[in-house]
Amino acid sequence: VLLAAAFSSADFAVGATEQERSQMYGMIAKMTAVAERRNELIALLGAGTRNMPGCLSYIISRDLHEENTIWVTEAWDSKVSHDASFSIPAIQTLIVKTKPLVADFSKVTEIEPVLGI
Amino acid sequence: VLLAAAFSSADFAVGATEQERSQMYGMIAKMTAVAERRNELIALLGAGTRNMPGCLSYIISRDLHEENTIWVTEAWDSKVSHDASFSIPAIQTLIVKTKPLVADFSKVTEIEPVLGI
Repeated sequence: VLLAAAFSSADFAVGATEQERSQMYGMIAKMTAVAERRNELIALLGAGTRNMPGCLSYIISRDLHEENTIWVTEAWDSKVSHDASFSIPAIQTLIVKTKPLVADFSKVTEIEPVLGI
Repeated sequence: VLLAAAFSSADFAVGATEQERSQMYGMIAKMTAVAERRNELIALLGAGTRNMPGCLSYIISRDLHEENTIWVTEAWDSKVSHDASFSIPAIQTLIVKTKPLVADFSKVTEIEPVLGI
């Protein structure tokens, strides 16, 4: 719902300059869970990331080919909102709780979500 | 909206076996546009992919670090719906129209979206 609204306003602002329109921000991240703890990690991430101001979409997926791999795809109304999320006490707690379950984390790339459903 | 509903029903089915609950399907794809035609490619993809049965989310993003790169993140109610989309005449037309704008396409991975907002 939030994402659809954000894309609608982006469509509306197609004629605006880069500076006039606000730039969305996103990330594609790959996480490798400690063996046999992938579902536990997904459950923690899912419960812990529901109320982040400015977060338009946060989708957690299992890799279909690598048994310990999780993908997180995020869309935010701005990079400022994304960066601010790390100051939320609940998110700091989440990071501490998930740490023993994460064998590897790689930020695959930073993106600007542009269009979508 | 569609994605939220799908995740709600997935939550509801947590106690169900793998076979009882329907498995969502998704993909993360990286496309390299022909030089200086990235925005044109994004516009074509955005307009052409709005009405695909079973598609819960289809987000098109610019890579913030590689000037010709686009990321497409997709969530579907099933792999069957995804595969069937290639039989839709409008999608076949879209593939033909976008072909001259695409220098490279790589399916980064196939995923099962599990939880999200």
